[in-house]
Amino acid sequence: MIKHLEELRTDSVSNFRGGKGEIQMTHFLETEKDEFKGKGRLFAKNVLKPGTSIGLHEHVGDFETYVVLSGEGMVDDNGEQKSVKPGDVIITKNGEKHSIENTGTVDLEVMALILFD
Amino acid sequence: MIKHLEELRTDSVSNFRGGKGEIQMTHFLETEKDEFKGKGRLFAKNVLKPGTSIGLHEHVGDFETYVVLSGEGMVDDNGEQKSVKPGDVIITKNGEKHSIENTGTVDLEVMALILFD
Repeated sequence: MIKHLEELRTDSVSNFRGGKGEIQMTHFLETEKDEFKGKGRLFAKNVLKPGTSIGLHEHVGDFETYVVLSGEGMVDDNGEQKSVKPGDVIITKNGEKHSIENTGTVDLEVMALILFD
Repeated sequence: MIKHLEELRTDSVSNFRGGKGEIQMTHFLETEKDEFKGKGRLFAKNVLKPGTSIGLHEHVGDFETYVVLSGEGMVDDNGEQKSVKPGDVIITKNGEKHSIENTGTVDLEVMALILFD
């Protein structure tokens, strides 16, 4: 089955997890259509414009993987501040926290995958 | 935990699944390190140079999602030939088959996620 880009659900979310500004999330798989087969709850591309962020939050019962596609940013990786660039992978395990902020001048695009632990 | 691009495992695979030429696979999560927590077995970026392909193969016991990041290609979507472009999502369910070929002039980059059914 093919879902073309224009058919995908894109949400604009303000102050996501207490972050700054508005981010866009484009969803590749949908839990409502059982497209994760119970293994997870998010597979999406997050687009953060310069100055916006996803606030610090804890993962409980699941874990999240970010893959930076473009742009640059600063991550709080369970208490440590780290800069990230395209190709970098951030793994936030069950019980850990993370945040991400676009500290650059172009869009920060991040693939996000949340699977259950 | 952050894995920087240069620390990721990249495999060059010839005639993958009977396909043409050599493709590159960069792995974001590793089964050997239990990074999928038993929910899947592949989360990677596949890079197909022009003219190369991943051959037609069936998924048994799992399902795969491709997200086209860049380039263009032709997909066999369980028997139907369909062209794909960036942002398109190809879902191949348990028991279905797919292949993908770079029919364009630039690299075809595809995010691939295999979860268990």
